[in-house]
Amino acid sequence: MAKTVAFLGLGHMGAPMATNLIKAGFKVNGFDPVTELLNAAAAKGIGKCSSPQEAVNNADFVVSMLPNGAAVECLYIDTDKLLDDISYKSLIIDCSTISAASSKRLIHDAKIKGLHAIEAPVSGGVSGAEKGSLSFICGGASSDVDKAKEVLEPMSSNIFYAGSAGAGQTAKICNNMLLAIHMIGTAEALQLGADNGLDTKVLTDIISKSSGCNWSVQNYNPYPGVMPEAPASNNYAGGFMVKLMCKDLGLAQETASQSKSYTPLGSLARNLYGILNLRGGSDLDFSSIQKLFQEAD
Amino acid sequence: MAKTVAFLGLGHMGAPMATNLIKAGFKVNGFDPVTELLNAAAAKGIGKCSSPQEAVNNADFVVSMLPNGAAVECLYIDTDKLLDDISYKSLIIDCSTISAASSKRLIHDAKIKGLHAIEAPVSGGVSGAEKGSLSFICGGASSDVDKAKEVLEPMSSNIFYAGSAGAGQTAKICNNMLLAIHMIGTAEALQLGADNGLDTKVLTDIISKSSGCNWSVQNYNPYPGVMPEAPASNNYAGGFMVKLMCKDLGLAQETASQSKSYTPLGSLARNLYGILNLRGGSDLDFSSIQKLFQEAD
Amino acid sequence: MAKTVAFLGLGHMGAPMATNLIKAGFKVNGFDPVTELLNAAAAKGIGKCSSPQEAVNNADFVVSMLPNGAAVECLYIDTDKLLDDISYKSLIIDCSTISAASSKRLIHDAKIKGLHAIEAPVSGGVSGAEKGSLSFICGGASSDVDKAKEVLEPMSSNIFYAGSAGAGQTAKICNNMLLAIHMIGTAEALQLGADNGLDTKVLTDIISKSSGCNWSVQNYNPYPGVMPEAPASNNYAGGFMVKLMCKDLGLAQETASQSKSYTPLGSLARNLYGILNLRGGSDLDFSSIQKLFQEAD
Amino acid sequence: MAKTVAFLGLGHMGAPMATNLIKAGFKVNGFDPVTELLNAAAAKGIGKCSSPQEAVNNADFVVSMLPNGAAVECLYIDTDKLLDDISYKSLIIDCSTISAASSKRLIHDAKIKGLHAIEAPVSGGVSGAEKGSLSFICGGASSDVDKAKEVLEPMSSNIFYAGSAGAGQTAKICNNMLLAIHMIGTAEALQLGADNGLDTKVLTDIISKSSGCNWSVQNYNPYPGVMPEAPASNNYAGGFMVKLMCKDLGLAQETASQSKSYTPLGSLARNLYGILNLRGGSDLDFSSIQKLFQEAD
Repeated sequence: MAKTVAFLGLGHMGAPMATNLIKAGFKVNGFDPVTELLNAAAAKGIGKCSSPQEAVNNADFVVSMLPNGAAVECLYIDTDKLLDDISYKSLIIDCSTISAASSKRLIHDAKIKGLHAIEAPVSGGVSGAEKGSLSFICGGASSDVDKAKEVLEPMSSNIFYAGSAGAGQTAKICNNMLLAIHMIGTAEALQLGADNGLDTKVLTDIISKSSGCNWSVQNYNPYPGVMPEAPASNNYAGGFMVKLMCKDLGLAQETASQSKSYTPLGSLARNLYGILNLRGGSDLDFSSIQKLFQEAD
Repeated sequence: MAKTVAFLGLGHMGAPMATNLIKAGFKVNGFDPVTELLNAAAAKGIGKCSSPQEAVNNADFVVSMLPNGAAVECLYIDTDKLLDDISYKSLIIDCSTISAASSKRLIHDAKIKGLHAIEAPVSGGVSGAEKGSLSFICGGASSDVDKAKEVLEPMSSNIFYAGSAGAGQTAKICNNMLLAIHMIGTAEALQLGADNGLDTKVLTDIISKSSGCNWSVQNYNPYPGVMPEAPASNNYAGGFMVKLMCKDLGLAQETASQSKSYTPLGSLARNLYGILNLRGGSDLDFSSIQKLFQEAD
Repeated sequence: MAKTVAFLGLGHMGAPMATNLIKAGFKVNGFDPVTELLNAAAAKGIGKCSSPQEAVNNADFVVSMLPNGAAVECLYIDTDKLLDDISYKSLIIDCSTISAASSKRLIHDAKIKGLHAIEAPVSGGVSGAEKGSLSFICGGASSDVDKAKEVLEPMSSNIFYAGSAGAGQTAKICNNMLLAIHMIGTAEALQLGADNGLDTKVLTDIISKSSGCNWSVQNYNPYPGVMPEAPASNNYAGGFMVKLMCKDLGLAQETASQSKSYTPLGSLARNLYGILNLRGGSDLDFSSIQKLFQEAD
Repeated sequence: MAKTVAFLGLGHMGAPMATNLIKAGFKVNGFDPVTELLNAAAAKGIGKCSSPQEAVNNADFVVSMLPNGAAVECLYIDTDKLLDDISYKSLIIDCSTISAASSKRLIHDAKIKGLHAIEAPVSGGVSGAEKGSLSFICGGASSDVDKAKEVLEPMSSNIFYAGSAGAGQTAKICNNMLLAIHMIGTAEALQLGADNGLDTKVLTDIISKSSGCNWSVQNYNPYPGVMPEAPASNNYAGGFMVKLMCKDLGLAQETASQSKSYTPLGSLARNLYGILNLRGGSDLDFSSIQKLFQEAD
């Protein structure tokens, strides 16, 4: 008999993730406070529940995909107090990107109530969610992460185990902070080259084969025209939006402030993305940081 | 009959480069104002000349490897005026890392006198010079660069053509600026992880397979112990010294200032490497930027 | 008859502040969990209480001076639950520098219990505490701040009213962030001048009469020898320690992250002070940032 | 009999400066390659010369006010070779803001030809030029600077002597770099306060009386509405334009690069002003950096 998954949060990410679970043979009971999202999910075979309590009833897995830590803490602990309604047999898998502190609180409070919870923030964006090619960066007890693989695999191409509670969130924001840094650095280097008469395709080719090489220059080039399929060559539409990068860089800075760590480039990256966000770039792909270094049209 | 190369500048880089030309069958006439370097080179089969004028006499190629732009301009134009002594049949290949402006001046002044010159700054360091595995990033007339390959190939594993005069220098400093940026960013991310309890080997593994991936984290990891063979695991000895990275980042900022380009991360990278350079890290490998983010011993 | 003040926290700041209240004619009942501090305070006429509960009993004013927000929240709300023991006639004045969020929580929870509380973080350091020349930057109900003046005046030369709960904390960290920025900027400018052969006294004089003028260059010059009485001319001893500036800059960054404000120079200032803090400067005066721009001895 | 001044460069700054010399009783012979500027100056009593050579003929003082170092070097040395035409009795006063290197070259080359030259870059902008209230920051032989006072005084309210050749230029860019830093810092602090609900007038008042005080917050407040007469309250019109601040910050970075000085906040200031310059703020007053931290309209 099919195992049951409660899926909480059916937005841009959650809906296609849940759909991939349906395809893999799970029975999925979904909930989202936005009626339109709930109806759209129902159209894809996801069970329509009228409350999170209804959704988690008797579930083998409870998967959540929410926009921020406050939403996660309200749902499970402070407002809906869902931890009181989840069955002992359920494994809770929170896929939201939230602070390590919030995530530790969820996993800790679940444990106190005799429940099992892990964190599994993702990278790969909407397109990864649709294709079932997300990366999950998991934290929590390793035995729980092992059990979660059954439900994570249909949604992913990579499952990482970062360590105990909070480690998955921390690893994700370390990765994304570094992504922001080499994306901005790549944009600066390509512009410096272009302003001095270099062909940015030639420069991309040289850097890609040299010590400057990084994921941004090689796979997601921010200079328009260098890679026809990249957002840069499509007016920076789609992809990973500037406002979402701002959220992750804010989490990185809060983490750094609490652990008394110093990240001068990471801090500057947050501020540059913040300026772009304020000055009209909020919904563009994050490679649009290139525009900050070019004359306005 | 063997072709003749005049090799000017027989320091840490120049001496092993010239030695590889000897091995490849060239006749090499060398000059360096430091007698010890000249004698050491002679012991490896390099002809010992008492002046740069003697060295360039009747050479097929004139290769120079000097510490900075002032040295190059003094040698060829302002003091030694060597352009007046070089034969029309010679091809000048300047391998020094200098400003695009200095390099353009050399190539332009050579042309006015009916000579041919290209720039071919290298990456790969002393070890690349010894192994004959340097990358040359060439600028100048493409026909001249093609002719230079005969002499560059025995010293290299990669020969890039960046564009006209100055383009090779610009491409190199764009690459090295980006290298500095992702090295610092990698050090920040690994320290942020470590300060929050992550295992830096696990974090390196996750980032290397994710969007944060870059040459530094993958090939030259700055956190001690992650890669046994990296300078970081050997007290940051050897490799590419902080003071040399400072030189390249200074060139990048001068270029940016002249072309009115803006490189906030590149500028901050220069300043962070500068602080490390002033505070005792001058002769360490450049991955020692990691120390800036850790408590002093 | 003398009014009574409960004084909680008798460290470097609290002890001399309480002593000034004694001098002004108040009866002061003190508490500190560190016995040595309690005894030292008693020697100056401060009543020795064995618990915070004993200290606040029947007090007209409750003044607290604690190291961080966690300490304040534990004392009043979460652990000692002191709000349950404070009389309705008491006015609570928290002088600790903590986040606006923590401060709002205290003032809000006090109000719910029918009590009155304000925040009154200070600037002026240990020397200001001893001389009774602190600045208080107050937040809360203006009528409460007016009532607090009776007890603040003997300790201060300036009492500012910034606005409602949290505004005092925010104004203080805005001021201190700006102080850090112009201190670092002053150190950079003086070093740039010195490195180019200028006399730093002459440069200080020019800047002080020009548009670069700021409190640091004029009153607290970071270059050794320019002002004989400044910490810079006394090996950076005394004054406002680097580790305390780091704390304030961390609060500024947390505030900025929560309000989605962008402060690129403030963020960089936090990181530069953090590097100095890690690399041996923790207990020096904050003007020692000058050392970061000079060769190590 | 009136002394004669040759005035070279009659733009926004030069024309009103020359006019003040006329008012002070000097005979002024002017030259500018732009005919309109020459005619406008003639209308104010400035003698109209058809070449710089004609202007300097028999002058007691030669004053130049040009846009950059290349213009100064072309005029005096490389193209017009004006040093060959200037009388031994003349004192050359170059008021242009240029690199210390260019300025040293002019003063040095003049000396070799038996002439006397000083640098006297100004601050105070167009309004200071009109009112005769500029500050001159002089470098060169002190006896020459003393002689120059006769002609500088009618144009100024402050004459500083910074030291030997180049010192005046260096002191000016140190001052202006620091001005940029505290202007940006002030904008960040005021925005952080405003985003957290503070009244920016109240915050300005608190900071102006505290350790955060600086020339920008007190005399040239960048937040609209705080000071009715400041450019910020007049749509950032007039004043000291962003593009001119960019020029000065570029000179500061070139100087820092050459002297191997490190100025992390100064470098970031250059980049932030550069972004504003590229993104539409070029002709606004430099206090418009405030806009970078606010949502676009």
